[in-house]
Amino acid sequence: MNYEEVLRLGLERGFFMPSCEIYSDAPGGFWDYGPLGLNLRNRFIELWRRELVRKDGMIEIDGAQIMPKSVFIASGHLESFADPIISCKNCNTILRADKFITEKIGKYIPERLSNEEFDKLIQSYGLRCPNCNGEFSKTKRFNMMFKVGIGPAEDEAYLRPETCQTIFTNFPRLFKIMRGKLPLGFAQFGKSFRNEISPRQSLIRLREFYQAEIEVFFNPKKANEFEKFNLIKDYSLRIFKDGKIEKVTCQEALDKQLTPNKLITYYLALIQKFYDKTGIDMERSRFRTLAEYERAFYAQVAYDFEVETSLGWIELVACNYRTDYDMSGHGKVSGKDVRVMDNGEKIIPHIFELSMGVDRSIYCILEHNLKRDGERLLLSLKPYLAPIQVSIFPLVNRDSLPEKARSIYLMLRDDFDVFYDESGSIGRRYRRMDEIGTPINITIDYQTLKDDTITIRDRDSMKQFRVSIANLKETLRQIIYKYD
Amino acid sequence: MNYEEVLRLGLERGFFMPSCEIYSDAPGGFWDYGPLGLNLRNRFIELWRRELVRKDGMIEIDGAQIMPKSVFIASGHLESFADPIISCKNCNTILRADKFITEKIGKYIPERLSNEEFDKLIQSYGLRCPNCNGEFSKTKRFNMMFKVGIGPAEDEAYLRPETCQTIFTNFPRLFKIMRGKLPLGFAQFGKSFRNEISPRQSLIRLREFYQAEIEVFFNPKKANEFEKFNLIKDYSLRIFKDGKIEKVTCQEALDKQLTPNKLITYYLALIQKFYDKTGIDMERSRFRTLAEYERAFYAQVAYDFEVETSLGWIELVACNYRTDYDMSGHGKVSGKDVRVMDNGEKIIPHIFELSMGVDRSIYCILEHNLKRDGERLLLSLKPYLAPIQVSIFPLVNRDSLPEKARSIYLMLRDDFDVFYDESGSIGRRYRRMDEIGTPINITIDYQTLKDDTITIRDRDSMKQFRVSIANLKETLRQIIYKYD
Repeated sequence: MNYEEVLRLGLERGFFMPSCEIYSDAPGGFWDYGPLGLNLRNRFIELWRRELVRKDGMIEIDGAQIMPKSVFIASGHLESFADPIISCKNCNTILRADKFITEKIGKYIPERLSNEEFDKLIQSYGLRCPNCNGEFSKTKRFNMMFKVGIGPAEDEAYLRPETCQTIFTNFPRLFKIMRGKLPLGFAQFGKSFRNEISPRQSLIRLREFYQAEIEVFFNPKKANEFEKFNLIKDYSLRIFKDGKIEKVTCQEALDKQLTPNKLITYYLALIQKFYDKTGIDMERSRFRTLAEYERAFYAQVAYDFEVETSLGWIELVACNYRTDYDMSGHGKVSGKDVRVMDNGEKIIPHIFELSMGVDRSIYCILEHNLKRDGERLLLSLKPYLAPIQVSIFPLVNRDSLPEKARSIYLMLRDDFDVFYDESGSIGRRYRRMDEIGTPINITIDYQTLKDDTITIRDRDSMKQFRVSIANLKETLRQIIYKYD
Repeated sequence: MNYEEVLRLGLERGFFMPSCEIYSDAPGGFWDYGPLGLNLRNRFIELWRRELVRKDGMIEIDGAQIMPKSVFIASGHLESFADPIISCKNCNTILRADKFITEKIGKYIPERLSNEEFDKLIQSYGLRCPNCNGEFSKTKRFNMMFKVGIGPAEDEAYLRPETCQTIFTNFPRLFKIMRGKLPLGFAQFGKSFRNEISPRQSLIRLREFYQAEIEVFFNPKKANEFEKFNLIKDYSLRIFKDGKIEKVTCQEALDKQLTPNKLITYYLALIQKFYDKTGIDMERSRFRTLAEYERAFYAQVAYDFEVETSLGWIELVACNYRTDYDMSGHGKVSGKDVRVMDNGEKIIPHIFELSMGVDRSIYCILEHNLKRDGERLLLSLKPYLAPIQVSIFPLVNRDSLPEKARSIYLMLRDDFDVFYDESGSIGRRYRRMDEIGTPINITIDYQTLKDDTITIRDRDSMKQFRVSIANLKETLRQIIYKYD
């Protein structure tokens, strides 16, 4: 299915919608989750906790989003987290220099160029405002962080542009009180904020968005002394380099130097295994090795985990080897000793990061699972991700079938996300559930009144089978929470 | 236990800690959740979903935190959400006028007074700067919203001061696509932001904080045609009015006009029932009826659900009858028709709100459940709220007991929050778990190697019993998820 179909489903069935849409001054890049999108996202995060945080024994935190200026002096964002922009001297249209030039001349121009280099390109190609044909001002840098003032004195602070900064500032305390030992992963799910010039495509490029970030702290000398590597050494990674995807085992990736060490290879495998469980088609996924000019300013080695959609390849996870860049910076600017002991040696830990875009992951799950199946529109979500897990319908709206159905609804309501519906034909009620991915449809019919059994209809196969009400909860659990 | 003990536990065991504490310019009023606090909070929210959102068939959403200026023109926050402040002409100390005068003259001064009335009080009592004895400037209003600029043009927007505004702006779409019928509850859990002059007491008064808000939309003519009232009519509420707590059934509250109608009474009961399940001591709780001068600018009737702590009575839930104030405002400013059909009549719905402070609720749960029990410090959390649900200890660190224990750890890790520890005496390991509220301690001993049974120690009674490993998961589920 394409972007428009996913957007239609999102808007009409309450997965997501533009924030403040009743207002004409609502800015772009802000979207809200409706009840179905929220449930889906909550379950996605539960899966992330299960398959990454708990499985790897990580420490998860949740920190404040507003952070003082010093943090971003240390992180480098105050200086380096800025887009090149040009504005029309005549009509004031503002554009991102790199994107605009790339589009106009049909050749990729990285944002890393200097302001002067952008100015030269604009001059040499004679580029003018697409709106009014006016002349452009010189290229400037626009910092993408949102500034806020704290207290009546308006002390300078910023909305964090990545969640991981809270992990870095908490690391010294938590490593100590949690009796940590390197290597050790920290995790955080939460909001980040980037004042994009051109937000677009609903959940794909937002100004306020959810990240689920993992920061693995380790001793760089021991990145190859990493026993857990053996658990995944035969697992196949899909690595894209020099224009093609190579399917290689983790061991081969290491041998061919597609990945730099065992630790990094292990976490790449973990994130791919996780996405495999989200129902995203792994045949349309890849790790793209980033060239030097594409990498963030703090990254020495970087892979983007990308997924192919109707909008092209979308980056879902930035996997960055951040070295000691972050902890050294925070140590220097805060004046605190951020070193930790590792086998008798005091070191500033290095960091490998798996920075996941949650909203776009949700988008990709929807696009990869929405399909036409004959007459019906089917959202074939993994049962453990489905926003509504169970629907309950009386076959007909009479003969005390609705009362019986409602009693089953009440029995299940506390433990599952259940939807009750008694109106319209049974076929139409099924269709409405198929479209939002409800894996289990329960029908109460005349036989229910006789023998206390109900019919379960499986969403994908549309096969039906009878279950006794006494065993219903356990049966539902087995269908919904089947992770393999 | 008192505030200092809870704070010590929070800081030393990773429940919560000041944000960016390694930085000297870290502003007050921002705290981070560590792994234990985060798990506790997540489970608290799951309980809120179970006991309120799902049980009442509410629609939960999750919206953007940054909202455009128009929203706060409509909501009245741009004009009215401001604290009276005075500043010292000599040393620039800034104070909240109402709090400072109240403290100095020993008589409650409401923030609702006019700036001129504050000036008069300061003059007539001869109040001067507590810092340098300087003279105060005239009283000004300080808007408590954080302003942010969107895009390169810095369009005026604000971090929301209450989550409910996203519910109001989404109501027109969601009521329609969810095929809503009045009365209908909407819910949202998320961050709100208030630029407090004097944040204090860790989780109690934050500048960035979590709310879980419920907004019930209803037809005011039908607030007494509310069948669900019968479900709770004999349930006892604790209503504080004119200096004393009256324990009255919901029916009596209505008859004595302590509550205005069935709908509002029902939701007060629901919130009290919810808190009863959190393990807060209900004998130290009350609904306080707010006097006119205490109510928020949008509220016609208001109750604070309060809990007594070592810091005094703390407001956990503001229960506000907001009338049609909000939807009328949004309708007017947006120019959109926000009315909905209710039995053939087109109306602007009225709203009753249950606005919960999540961080302070977490604080109160900790304070009410932390106790000395003989030698040990015991956090007697409800099992379904415990951050670590199960600990696993080999009795001794030899004879393949650790290997056996780790295999059980691996068996449970995906489905439960499990902590494994093999170091130190078994008594000390129990103590560490008691202090963070782990309800189930599993010990692997020599008998385990013989018959595949383990010992479960119950945290509160310290009683032990043996369970076969084959039945372990089911036994754990029954202990942990026992809601009655």
